Formats: sequence, structure tokens, C-alpha cells
Amino acid sequence: MLCGTIWKVGGKDHRRVIHAIKVGLSLTLVTMLHMLEPFFEVFGPNAMWIVMTVVLELQFTAGETSFKCLNMGVGTVLAGSLALFVDFIATKSRKMFQAMFFGTTVFLIGAAAAYLRFFPCVKNNYDSGIVIFLSTFTLIIASGYKENNVIKIVRDQFYFIAIGCATCLFMGILVFPVWSGEFLQNSIIDKLEGLAKSIQASVDEHFHDSSEIKENQEKRSLEDPIMAILDSKSNEGTLAFYARLEPRHSRLCNRFSWRQHMKLGDVLRQLGYTVVALRCCLQTEIQAPRSVRALFKDPCIRLSGEVTKVLMELANNIRNRRYCSPRILCDHLHEAVQDLDSVIKSLPRLFLDSNSNQATNMLAAARQTKPNAKHRRSRSAPEVIESVLRPELSETTITNPEFSEALSFASFAFLLVEIAGRLNNVIKEFEELGRIVCY
Amino acid sequence: MLCGTIWKVGGKDHRRVIHAIKVGLSLTLVTMLHMLEPFFEVFGPNAMWIVMTVVLELQFTAGETSFKCLNMGVGTVLAGSLALFVDFIATKSRKMFQAMFFGTTVFLIGAAAAYLRFFPCVKNNYDSGIVIFLSTFTLIIASGYKENNVIKIVRDQFYFIAIGCATCLFMGILVFPVWSGEFLQNSIIDKLEGLAKSIQASVDEHFHDSSEIKENQEKRSLEDPIMAILDSKSNEGTLAFYARLEPRHSRLCNRFSWRQHMKLGDVLRQLGYTVVALRCCLQTEIQAPRSVRALFKDPCIRLSGEVTKVLMELANNIRNRRYCSPRILCDHLHEAVQDLDSVIKSLPRLFLDSNSNQATNMLAAARQTKPNAKHRRSRSAPEVIESVLRPELSETTITNPEFSEALSFASFAFLLVEIAGRLNNVIKEFEELGRIVCY
Repeated sequence: MLCGTIWKVGGKDHRRVIHAIKVGLSLTLVTMLHMLEPFFEVFGPNAMWIVMTVVLELQFTAGETSFKCLNMGVGTVLAGSLALFVDFIATKSRKMFQAMFFGTTVFLIGAAAAYLRFFPCVKNNYDSGIVIFLSTFTLIIASGYKENNVIKIVRDQFYFIAIGCATCLFMGILVFPVWSGEFLQNSIIDKLEGLAKSIQASVDEHFHDSSEIKENQEKRSLEDPIMAILDSKSNEGTLAFYARLEPRHSRLCNRFSWRQHMKLGDVLRQLGYTVVALRCCLQTEIQAPRSVRALFKDPCIRLSGEVTKVLMELANNIRNRRYCSPRILCDHLHEAVQDLDSVIKSLPRLFLDSNSNQATNMLAAARQTKPNAKHRRSRSAPEVIESVLRPELSETTITNPEFSEALSFASFAFLLVEIAGRLNNVIKEFEELGRIVCY
Repeated sequence: MLCGTIWKVGGKDHRRVIHAIKVGLSLTLVTMLHMLEPFFEVFGPNAMWIVMTVVLELQFTAGETSFKCLNMGVGTVLAGSLALFVDFIATKSRKMFQAMFFGTTVFLIGAAAAYLRFFPCVKNNYDSGIVIFLSTFTLIIASGYKENNVIKIVRDQFYFIAIGCATCLFMGILVFPVWSGEFLQNSIIDKLEGLAKSIQASVDEHFHDSSEIKENQEKRSLEDPIMAILDSKSNEGTLAFYARLEPRHSRLCNRFSWRQHMKLGDVLRQLGYTVVALRCCLQTEIQAPRSVRALFKDPCIRLSGEVTKVLMELANNIRNRRYCSPRILCDHLHEAVQDLDSVIKSLPRLFLDSNSNQATNMLAAARQTKPNAKHRRSRSAPEVIESVLRPELSETTITNPEFSEALSFASFAFLLVEIAGRLNNVIKEFEELGRIVCY
């Protein structure tokens, strides 16, 4: 089982194996450097900071590695400068006073840095920088007190960080680099496909047996792509944050435009909320009778099929960096929406009739036709309704008690149309993306 | 402005200031220890690991601090043992072979550790442990090669980590401790209140002017508590993870039951999705005419008021650790649901009538009564409907084209009833929580 997991993690993305080899290689390089006689003689055991730098900074994507290097560099420079300044002030005083002064400084700087970590923007982006700043500052102050040679310590520290960062940047950006922007793009593709699957599954489920629904619900809650889509905001934000540091993005034609991908992600999340709302209709206690559902089966399934097709097409286009006119994409979509809309408009008549004449009314007809439903599949729902709602029906207007039951279906249909509407926003953002990244 | 932000961060939770002081104090303590003559003579400059430990491990909550200490402890023990073993194998060989052997080992261990970080469970929980393991292992191997005294290095490293961990645990658990479990509980309370506000705002907005809606939408998308609620899963998971390590939880009466809080959080997130669906109905292009909305205003507002009241009451009960019978909570809720349900049932008749007799039909009546709406406020919606739907109305059955417009309202009402239904699950989990934490 462990072997299976190990294999699966690597199989999902073979670049992970390459990254592991890169880390191993970098660590070996800096360890070997540390083992060299002349190097050890000049820098002593503190050179372990190089190893620390590599372990902390060499991340999977080029953007994250660059950002961590920047963080570490700025943290070290700030800590070094501050330590030099503090040492300069205390340098002419007695040893006892010096120790007290250093202690107070460490206390103040430590407390300020810890407080700074509560700021949301600092916490999210610069936490590792603060950690490096604090440890470097304390190290220089304490070692400087013992060895009376702060300038050498600060200079050495700069060298260590510079060597560590250079190794990381070389390995991260030049040797088989992995781009955050690409991950961001893949996350959008996954989202498009996940939404397509989820919409398809919801509609299929709605027109299935209720006993199956219960089973499916339990299964679904465990492995639902929709929940992952809704939870994706912070992950996407991080990827976009790193993507903006990646060198590919300075080209005229921005291959992975993080800004536009983020926008597309937001629109997709909005669509995702509507899909969750659609699921609400499946999980509610009040369910429309199967007979009613059967009548609307065809236009609903057709619409969901069209929506799914468009989403999958968009995913494929982004993956293959291909542009596709929205007119071709939405060709049949509008027809399907119109279709469902016209069926929805006949809904009040349906409920009106259901109580008027039990022998000929629509629901009864639907119930009677249920066993033959399979043979009728090719017939569209409007046709069925047309044939049932014959003009010779007598009409009375007693309010139908089944109406509240059908409300869940009305919501379902409404949300399906709403999803089709929101798809327009997605297509709009896709077009903009195509323009920016020059498909 | 900066001063304002600094003040706000501390004002939000004064324990943040205490934490900053604790970090400053701990750092000063370990720096002073490092400065002591006898200590420095025994341990040398490597004692900086103590400072590193404090910087990395002393976190805001007791649970997180304990977990990081555990991580660091296990990482160091593993790295030390492995380094001793590797050194034992290479000890009798020549220096050149030794260097090559060490290099290969560092490469293999480094690559394996980097690969291990791709496992989701490792990445989420044990990342800091891996970092410590890797740097400690490389440090011992490299220093051991130079100084030929691996056992002393390993022993020193253990001492450093032990002193660092002891300081952190003392400060984290014994000096003004902050509990993750408490944060988890507060996050649930915030969620309850956020949901209440969000439902109230949605319903208020639905019955407002459409021009105002546009404005509100823009404002809302920026500062919506509902989005924070939906995004809360990973944050809550982390809090629960740390909460299980906190000593308070071994009592018979689990003061902050992380498991039950997580369950309550899940149910609230489910409720949150329905609220988002409710918002979908506000943002859709097809809006029910104001006249129709006005008719349903009172029962909708009443139901949302009851839901809000129950949610706020639950939040207060959890905050004050008080138990409240669900029967008292839901006293008026069921009435309000019944009320709305009966109004919903009259919906088909409404649309039927609207086309039958323009002079007397319901919509027209509603439109006419609109200017007087303020004077009629005290009259409940069912009364209005009753008065409009007089039995002497003539009836015809032409399908109403306005029906699709009203569908958005039907969805709105349906989702409102659905929210009331889901509130039952919340109350159920609250009862279970009350039982576990002994309110």
C-alpha cells in the first residue's frame, strides 16, 4: 500500500521526482562545499546556514523559490544592518551594560517581529522572511558579543545566504523549472472539468430513482470535485502570487497571465456556488413527483449536456492554447435554454390542469406514460406537453396542493437556466484570456 | 494609518500583545544563556540552534506550539540516529571514501525527504518536522566529517532542541496560554453570526429597490461574511488538529470538543451554501416584479427574522456555555415556515388570475396598493392575498408569460424554506455539542 502511494504521488506529476533529485543534488553540493578544507577554515561551522537556506528555499515552483530567496535576502540584509547599528551604539560601553543593552534590544525586536506576524498581509506572504530576520539578528547579536567581531559575522552571513540563494535560484529557475503560472492554468482546467462533471452528475441524479439518490449522496459528499472548487480560492491566490515573480511573464505575450486566470477562477467559483445551489434541490426533503420530473427530463438533460459540452470545450481550448469563437461554443446552448424556458412557462397550466380532470390531466397522463418512458425517449418534452395539454380540456381553478412539491423542481429548472446564464461570464473571461495570452 | 492598523491588530485580541511579549522574553532568555561564559565554552556557536528553535516553535496557541515542539523533537531524534548509523558505517574507511559515502547519503536522504513533502498528509502537518530533520541530518554529517566527533555533536543537538522546546512549552502552555480549541469555538460563533447577518441582508435586499440592489451587490462582494464562512474549512481543520493536542481535552468533560465543533462547522457550511444559492436569486437578471415581491414580503421577512433569531441565540448560547432547549428556539420558526408555505401554495392561482381579469386580478391589485404599502404594513400577506382572491373572480387559463419571471421568486422562497430546514441539522449538532461539553 505504501509503495502504491509512493508510486501514485510521482505518477501524478513526474516533475515531482525531478524536484526531489534537484533537492538531493543541491544539498549534496552545499554539504560537499562545507566539507572542503579551505572553505571550512575561512567560514567555520556557521557555514551550516547555507544548508539551512537550501532546505528552506528550494521549493517546487520557480516563483516560490524566487520569492523565498527574496524574503531571505531582505530579512538577512535588514537583520545585518540593524545588528551593526545596535553593535555600533553599544561598542564603547562596558561589558555588563553591553549585555543588558543587547538583551533589551533582542526583547524589543523579538516582540515587534512577533506582533508583526499578526498582520494578515505579513502572515500570508512574509512569514519566512520574519523568521530569518529574527534568527539572523539574534545570532549576530549573540555571536558578536562573544567574539567581538560583528562585521565579520555579518559579512559571512551575507555570503552564506548569497551562496544558498544562488544555488536555489540556479536549480529552481534554470534546471527543469516548474512554473506556478502553469499550475494556476491547470487548476483552472481542473475546475472547468470538475464543474462540467458536477453539473452532469446533478442533472442525471435528479432524474434517477430516489433510492439511488440516497446512495449517491453519501458517495458524492466524499469525493465531490465541487467542494474542492469552492475551497480553491486561497490556493489559487498563492499560485498567482508566485506566478507574478516568474520571468516568463515579462514577455510581450504573457503566457500565463495570473491576473486573468484569477478572474476566470473567480467567475468559475461563482458558477460553482450556483451548482451547489442546484445540489440543494437534490438534497431537499420535498421532491417533485417522478411524473413531473419525467416531463421535463429531456430539455433539462439537453441543457445540462450543452453546458457540460461548453465547459469541456473551454478546458480543452485552454489546455491546447487554442482559441475558439464563443459563437461556435454557444451554438446549441441558447436553443436548449429557449427550449427549457418554454417548457417552464407551461408549468402553471400543468398544475392548474392536474386538479381539473383526473382522467385527462397532464400528471395523470405522465404517470400513465411512465412505463413506456423508454420508448418515448426520442420525443422531446414540449411535444409531450403539447400532446397532453389538448385544447378540449375543461378547466377549473382550485389551487393544487402539489404545487409546493413542484417548487423544488421549479428551483432546479431556474438554477439550470441561471447556470447557463453564468456560463456567459465564463466565456467572456475566456475570450479576454485568449486575447491576453495570444492563443 | 500605520498606527491605526497596529492598534487595530492588538485591539482585536489583546492576547496578541501578550504573545509578542512572550516571544520577546523567550528570545532574550535564550540569547542571555548563549552569552553566558560557561555555557558558550561547553557548547560553542552551534548553540544558536536554541534561538532557531524558539523562533520556529513558539506559536500563538498552546496546541500549535506543542505540535511544533513534537515535530522538531521527532525530527531531531530521527536525524541524530540516522547520522550516527551512517557515521558508524563509514567510520573505518578512508577519508576520500568517507566523503563520497556521506555525499551519496545526503543526496538520497535529501531526495527522499523532498519527495515525502509531496504527500498531502505530510505536507499539511509534518512539513516543519521534515525541514528540521533535513537540516539537522546534513549539519551532523558535515560537522561530523570535519570534527570527527559525531556523538558529541548529536548529543549537543539534542540538548539545544530540548532547551528550546522546554522554553517554548513553558511559555506556550503555562504563561497566559491561548487555546486552539477556544479559537475553534469562536470561529463557530462568528460563523453563526455571519450567517444570521447574511440571511437577514439577503432578504432585506430582495424586498428593496432594484437600483439599491446593484449598489449593495458591489459593496457586498467586498466584505461578505458568507465567503469567509465558505472558505473556512482548511483553517478550521488546522485549529481542530492543534486543539486535539491541548491538555484541557483530556478531562471527562471536554471543554472544547474539536470533533463536535468540526461537525457543527460542516453543517454550518452546508447552510452557507444554501445562503449563497439564495444570493443567486438576487443576482439573476430575471427578477420577479416588485408587486409580486411585495405580496410575499411579510412572511419572508418573518421567516428570515426567525431564522436569524435562532442563529444568534445559538451563537450566544455557545459563547456563554449555556444550554437552551431546541423547542424554545424553534417556537416561532415552524409557524413562520407554515405561513410562508401557505402563501407559496397560492402562487399558481395568482398567476392564473393575473391574465383573467385585469381590473380585479391580484397583480393589478398589488400594483394599485403599492403606493399605500406603507400604511398597509401591519397587514399580513395572507390577508392581502385573501382579500384579492375573491371567490367571485372569473377564471380563464391562458398561460401567464410572467410566470418565468416569478420563478426567481419561487426559488427564493423555496430556498428560504430550505434554510429553515437545514437549521434543524444545526440545532441537532448544537444539542450534541451541549451534551459533550456539559453546558
